[in-house]
Amino acid sequence: METRSERAEATLAAIVDAALTMAALEGLESLTLGEVAKRLGLSKSGVFSRVGSREQLQVAVLLEYDRRFQQAVFVPAMREPRGLPRLDAIMRRWLARATDTDRALSCIYTAGAFEYDDREGPVRDQLQDGVLRLRAALRRTVLQAIEAGHLRADLDVEQFVFEMDALFTGLLRDTRFLRDPLVHQRGIKAWERMLAAARTSASPA
Amino acid sequence: METRSERAEATLAAIVDAALTMAALEGLESLTLGEVAKRLGLSKSGVFSRVGSREQLQVAVLLEYDRRFQQAVFVPAMREPRGLPRLDAIMRRWLARATDTDRALSCIYTAGAFEYDDREGPVRDQLQDGVLRLRAALRRTVLQAIEAGHLRADLDVEQFVFEMDALFTGLLRDTRFLRDPLVHQRGIKAWERMLAAARTSASPA
Repeated sequence: METRSERAEATLAAIVDAALTMAALEGLESLTLGEVAKRLGLSKSGVFSRVGSREQLQVAVLLEYDRRFQQAVFVPAMREPRGLPRLDAIMRRWLARATDTDRALSCIYTAGAFEYDDREGPVRDQLQDGVLRLRAALRRTVLQAIEAGHLRADLDVEQFVFEMDALFTGLLRDTRFLRDPLVHQRGIKAWERMLAAARTSASPA
Repeated sequence: METRSERAEATLAAIVDAALTMAALEGLESLTLGEVAKRLGLSKSGVFSRVGSREQLQVAVLLEYDRRFQQAVFVPAMREPRGLPRLDAIMRRWLARATDTDRALSCIYTAGAFEYDDREGPVRDQLQDGVLRLRAALRRTVLQAIEAGHLRADLDVEQFVFEMDALFTGLLRDTRFLRDPLVHQRGIKAWERMLAAARTSASPA
């Protein structure tokens, strides 16, 4: 039998899931407790008692987004050997999310960065924290590829990671705003050129 | 003596200028006729009689933004010789705008692309039109650099222009959201590497 706390947890998960869908389609700023309650057929006070303020709901959405991103991109890539194979798997999975138009989920962080560039507060802090954690994880993976002898020892790691993220951001914009069906191939081509310039002769094919 | 139509034109210019500042700081979606009227000490009906609907004001803001962008980036670059010098001047002026934090104007198109990716209507159409015109102008300039023998004849022009725009978008995000002071140098470094890979031996230094 389902316990009371299991039910409460399932309701909270449903609230965060509905809010994540809304935020992905209409932006984090569009989220309101009332609208989420309406979509789930709950009372606004019922939502409030579970998630707290609107800002707390926005932060919960970002944490849930992170969890899914890890699950879709980093967890499977960790099964690849350390070094270039793992780095390549991360980037390809990440780029694939930008052009996966079935799930509109890939835009919360990037759209959020432009929504919140001039707005201070816990949502901006959480967004920034997420971007910086992603960059740190990419940096670690690039460094491992250098240690493994797959990428050049004199590679500017910070520059390389900046260019990875710029490529993803541009790809996402072209997919979602220009709706250009060729853009996934362009992203892959740009990535392969970045890798070709950073590779050593000892790197796996 | 100032004529009546000159006064009307000056008022319209002041309305569009105030709306452009608002849109740059808070997003195109934040624009309302009432708020613009308040900031200028005009009546809401006075603003309405001059610009028409909120959507027409948003479109007018985008056209004025385009005019200023042309003036700041393309007009001075046209004084450079055709080919690589002109292409390089355009990209450097464009990248400089991304990191010019005094004028927050550089973000209307990029932020707008994420604000309007799922919203249909005249504002989205105008945004898309602006992005496509910019891409076409960049494409022409890259083609001229190929004709001048400065860039490789087998260069994938569409790919090159996609990567120029992705670089700008990533740079803008890092400047305005991460507030990273080193990012302008990173943008220039990435651009110089793109050029180095596309150059012929006949290209000017």
